[in-house]
Amino acid sequence: MHKEYKDRHLGALENLGLARALYEIMASKPLLAPHGHVDPAMLDANKNFTNPVELLVTPDHYVTRMLASQGISYESLGIPRADGSRNEVDPREVWTILAANWHLFRSTPSRIWIQEILATLFDVEEVLNSDNAASIYQVIDTKLQTADFKPQALFKRFNIEVLATTDATCDSLSHHQALAKLNLGGLVIPTFRPDDVSDPARPNWKSDLKLLATTSGIEINSFANLLEALIIRRSYFKKHGATATDHGVYSARTLNLGPGEKEALFNQVLAGSATPSQLDDFRAVMLFEHALMAADDGLVMQIHPGALRNYDSQIFNKYGADKGFDIPVETKYTKELAPLLNAVGNHPNFRAVLFTLDEASYSRELAPLAGAYSGLRLGPPWWFLDSLNGLERWRDAVTETAGYYNTVGFIDDTRAFTSIPVRHDVARRFDAGYLAREVVRDRITEVEAFELASDLAYNLTKEFFNL
Amino acid sequence: MHKEYKDRHLGALENLGLARALYEIMASKPLLAPHGHVDPAMLDANKNFTNPVELLVTPDHYVTRMLASQGISYESLGIPRADGSRNEVDPREVWTILAANWHLFRSTPSRIWIQEILATLFDVEEVLNSDNAASIYQVIDTKLQTADFKPQALFKRFNIEVLATTDATCDSLSHHQALAKLNLGGLVIPTFRPDDVSDPARPNWKSDLKLLATTSGIEINSFANLLEALIIRRSYFKKHGATATDHGVYSARTLNLGPGEKEALFNQVLAGSATPSQLDDFRAVMLFEHALMAADDGLVMQIHPGALRNYDSQIFNKYGADKGFDIPVETKYTKELAPLLNAVGNHPNFRAVLFTLDEASYSRELAPLAGAYSGLRLGPPWWFLDSLNGLERWRDAVTETAGYYNTVGFIDDTRAFTSIPVRHDVARRFDAGYLAREVVRDRITEVEAFELASDLAYNLTKEFFNL
Amino acid sequence: MHKEYKDRHLGALENLGLARALYEIMASKPLLAPHGHVDPAMLDANKNFTNPVELLVTPDHYVTRMLASQGISYESLGIPRADGSRNEVDPREVWTILAANWHLFRSTPSRIWIQEILATLFDVEEVLNSDNAASIYQVIDTKLQTADFKPQALFKRFNIEVLATTDATCDSLSHHQALAKLNLGGLVIPTFRPDDVSDPARPNWKSDLKLLATTSGIEINSFANLLEALIIRRSYFKKHGATATDHGVYSARTLNLGPGEKEALFNQVLAGSATPSQLDDFRAVMLFEHALMAADDGLVMQIHPGALRNYDSQIFNKYGADKGFDIPVETKYTKELAPLLNAVGNHPNFRAVLFTLDEASYSRELAPLAGAYSGLRLGPPWWFLDSLNGLERWRDAVTETAGYYNTVGFIDDTRAFTSIPVRHDVARRFDAGYLAREVVRDRITEVEAFELASDLAYNLTKEFFNL
Repeated sequence: MHKEYKDRHLGALENLGLARALYEIMASKPLLAPHGHVDPAMLDANKNFTNPVELLVTPDHYVTRMLASQGISYESLGIPRADGSRNEVDPREVWTILAANWHLFRSTPSRIWIQEILATLFDVEEVLNSDNAASIYQVIDTKLQTADFKPQALFKRFNIEVLATTDATCDSLSHHQALAKLNLGGLVIPTFRPDDVSDPARPNWKSDLKLLATTSGIEINSFANLLEALIIRRSYFKKHGATATDHGVYSARTLNLGPGEKEALFNQVLAGSATPSQLDDFRAVMLFEHALMAADDGLVMQIHPGALRNYDSQIFNKYGADKGFDIPVETKYTKELAPLLNAVGNHPNFRAVLFTLDEASYSRELAPLAGAYSGLRLGPPWWFLDSLNGLERWRDAVTETAGYYNTVGFIDDTRAFTSIPVRHDVARRFDAGYLAREVVRDRITEVEAFELASDLAYNLTKEFFNL
Repeated sequence: MHKEYKDRHLGALENLGLARALYEIMASKPLLAPHGHVDPAMLDANKNFTNPVELLVTPDHYVTRMLASQGISYESLGIPRADGSRNEVDPREVWTILAANWHLFRSTPSRIWIQEILATLFDVEEVLNSDNAASIYQVIDTKLQTADFKPQALFKRFNIEVLATTDATCDSLSHHQALAKLNLGGLVIPTFRPDDVSDPARPNWKSDLKLLATTSGIEINSFANLLEALIIRRSYFKKHGATATDHGVYSARTLNLGPGEKEALFNQVLAGSATPSQLDDFRAVMLFEHALMAADDGLVMQIHPGALRNYDSQIFNKYGADKGFDIPVETKYTKELAPLLNAVGNHPNFRAVLFTLDEASYSRELAPLAGAYSGLRLGPPWWFLDSLNGLERWRDAVTETAGYYNTVGFIDDTRAFTSIPVRHDVARRFDAGYLAREVVRDRITEVEAFELASDLAYNLTKEFFNL
Repeated sequence: MHKEYKDRHLGALENLGLARALYEIMASKPLLAPHGHVDPAMLDANKNFTNPVELLVTPDHYVTRMLASQGISYESLGIPRADGSRNEVDPREVWTILAANWHLFRSTPSRIWIQEILATLFDVEEVLNSDNAASIYQVIDTKLQTADFKPQALFKRFNIEVLATTDATCDSLSHHQALAKLNLGGLVIPTFRPDDVSDPARPNWKSDLKLLATTSGIEINSFANLLEALIIRRSYFKKHGATATDHGVYSARTLNLGPGEKEALFNQVLAGSATPSQLDDFRAVMLFEHALMAADDGLVMQIHPGALRNYDSQIFNKYGADKGFDIPVETKYTKELAPLLNAVGNHPNFRAVLFTLDEASYSRELAPLAGAYSGLRLGPPWWFLDSLNGLERWRDAVTETAGYYNTVGFIDDTRAFTSIPVRHDVARRFDAGYLAREVVRDRITEVEAFELASDLAYNLTKEFFNL
């Protein structure tokens, strides 16, 4: 059997027929996107995207940081500055820069995703280069102005069953409410992300705490009151469709303190007299308390630790957060999560999904934990690791200890709306090839591979995230 | 050449003929099991196994923790509690639970081992499922009651040349003495595991120390006396066939203290006034001292660090140790073993085998250490890592620095007696495929592959463990 | 298409024709060796090598430590002792020991390199063994005495365009000056390695500092003066062809102190009253300051952290440094390099190449850093990791985040002169196979693979090292 273009990323020359058949099953499933960063306001406003650069370059820090890594300045790309200003560059010039540097992305997921978007959404099958840059720009730009390419039309075309956004503690969820009244062929639901009020080291922590007090109607003069206010907001999110929370923490450390200790710590933090170690304790307490609340209200806890944010102060000061200069650090889970897991790890109502940027933890800590605790599942490779080799290292490292059923399906985690279907498609192609290979490797039967194809593409996510 | 069922796990489509030939050589060798947890009393008593569940489910924490990870309670499985009681469940019901959840084990070693046991020992070649569960149970249960399935009959059938058990410091070794008088076609030898008296944080440390005093006839009122008592016990084990010791430590840290410092530390520990850091020092001293004793008496030291035992206090309090809730932590060796290796690492009489649960140490520390010190060999992938991918990652990571001859052969490390032959068989199949692939990869010749096949399957273990 | 001997290490049965074509392009490029340890005095003297053992065994710590790991003493190999004496052994005896133990090297890079040297330089295609040892010795020994095998003749034959040596802070570079006057068909350039004066824990630190004062003509009575003296030496090296510096540090930690703090620290270090933590600060300051100097003078900074040197005190005391008993430790980069990168990471004139012995850092820290900062590139697998599997793990782990263009080409890092061409050749074969596989894996096109072949074999090194 000869491999063709349609077989791309199936990666399984040994058993191509089976890989194809498995992929067909996976491709037939609607998309579940339980964690991502699409802006609900964009979907609600439903305006056409401005141009190819605003769609595919400027907002994608995977792309801009790779250009920066070869000395191409954010100014020359017209990246918006933290103060709202920007160097006004003709987007055609930026597109030309991208095309001239497209070789930088060889063998990277950004290259795959963008070429897949070009192919599947804009019928452009050529590899981008300096010669075809202008004509490709024109094709994209023209289509972007049509009604078929408005966000809501794309949402329908993408066959999304559920798209979860990520929203601040006090978000009104007005866009979600507006979107809920439309017929999009799928749901847009919020995710509760209380990072703003969980880390006193954040510059806006105090003002966010005040906002929480106002929004919840609870005066936050004690730790107990803080928890009460959070419970009110969790409940508000749940009422508006949320099934999960998200926790972007530096460390996975958790801490179980007695009531008096928590109040004393909170007072010290509030008074601004907490030591760095006490601030760390406070963050660990917050993560722990959200686990207790999760066991109570059933919202699925997503834990994303291990990135040192805003690593470069010059980039951060000039352009703000999420500009490609967040760098992972060593991340451990065993001792860090012990308090949390000892409290609710096997609680029948507790559910958590663990992510990492440190692959050393896959076989050492994450798979053994998820392979024991009923409340834990492993999230797929995240961020820098969300790639074909990354998926392979992950499945190879965790499956033998945790199995498939202590993982959840693919998570796109993207703010690039048009990349959602291609990211899922690439991951499904990988999994189809992987399962076919597991059959060749005598580790599952063909019948099992077909069952797993449905489970990995759809059922695991649907079930664990209560979608 | 077409791959058939008999070629399972050879994993080498590129060079199947060679892989088959290599496997045949390996399969012809008797089994050497220099480290494991089979109960010598069971072999001595030679009673039939009660039923399929007591054989394959209840005592296997790889299996029960995977079921627990999906919310199946240990109560429903009839797991014995720490207090000796248990929920009396019909074993047919437990077997039904296993069958209904057999999908959880897809692609895991437990699945492979149990299906191999079913196939090779009970002639059951179907994949377990809810439909065939009852009939498979019946087949196993019936055979288990026959004389051919008594432990000693199985021992003979398994072609075991040496089986080492793991035994406490003061074990009388009476079962080993009884077994030595039988004609089993192979030896059952003890292994000296002094963990009970090496870690003062163990609840029974003091009573175990007293037991050591009684058993050895040495009053243990000084560190020097403790060592003297240990030497007596090491000698007792050696006299009864032991060729090795085993050290299940949290950390690989070692510490070389002067005589006065050791006595002072011991006094403080004995008085119960040692700080956590001093307790840690004491454990590090004990590991160091056993290395000196090993260089003296020639018992091969096995070091198994890196598991945080009894991680879940609820599980531990209710069901006791070894119930699948031991979780690995980051484990380092370079600085930790420096005192030990500087003292005896190149001593002509010193031999040690290093194990890990932290794969990051393979290429970084373990292979460079074993590739330099004459006294060091690397143990094969251990516990969570004892799997087909685990074996591949291990060989890929260590061979280029340490070679094959600074490793020892496969070690099953199992308490599941009937899994011994299948574990060795799967590892041999893997190695046959690996060697065939190394020939394809131009790294060894076919002639060398055949020599290595014998060495990996038999000679390396035989020689290094003095079997 | 059938694989033949000439296809060795192409590793790409899936796409052999392409791999061959890519390799041909790579093989046609001259060698760039921007980092290594060939002795320029040896090249300058241009004497014949003494015998096969002095060429291939005694000076190669990869080889001698593997023999040591199986109990073969350095005495029996005639390894020179630290005091300059040595056990006088007949080199034929040492060669016999090597041949009798050649099985130890199966699947290791040493085996590949030495067999490649035998084949390509001495027309010996047999695998070394006890039977052919004497005749192979004779063949090598005879050729070594001919004019064609003098170092300069070999240099020309190897098609080396640039060979960088590694030289101490105060080296006169007289050999480089002499070599520059010859017609070798390529350049021999120095590399500035200021380790001798950067680490006050070195026994000779003070005398090396004095030597620096003498050589530079700067009295070093302040930190500012130390920097001034270093700038003079950097400039001297640059004038004599150096394009890079090298930093063999224990940790990648950097520290940005104010002028007063630096002077105070320097005074304390100079007075011998610095604490271990202050000594560590001083080393971190030195690494930081060299980065500032690099941004100024444009010398490319090579950072080689993570080895615990002279690990075995008995070996070190008897035989000195670089005897195979340096052992890697966990190595982190994110927080450690933050001061340096925040200062000059995106400076247009700053260039640094990062190396590691800790593969856990590949995807976690190194690829994200190099994939963001314009001044950073990743060096290829180093030392224990410079092997076929090591190359594959490296490319697999870093390419998807950093791309190919944030790496530099192959670096041989060798003191074994005749291994230079074979090391490059093996790496080129690997890369040819890897690129062919990336085409099969649908991640690049054939056209791109050909462009990458030239870039990986030549252009990336040429451009980044300013060769």
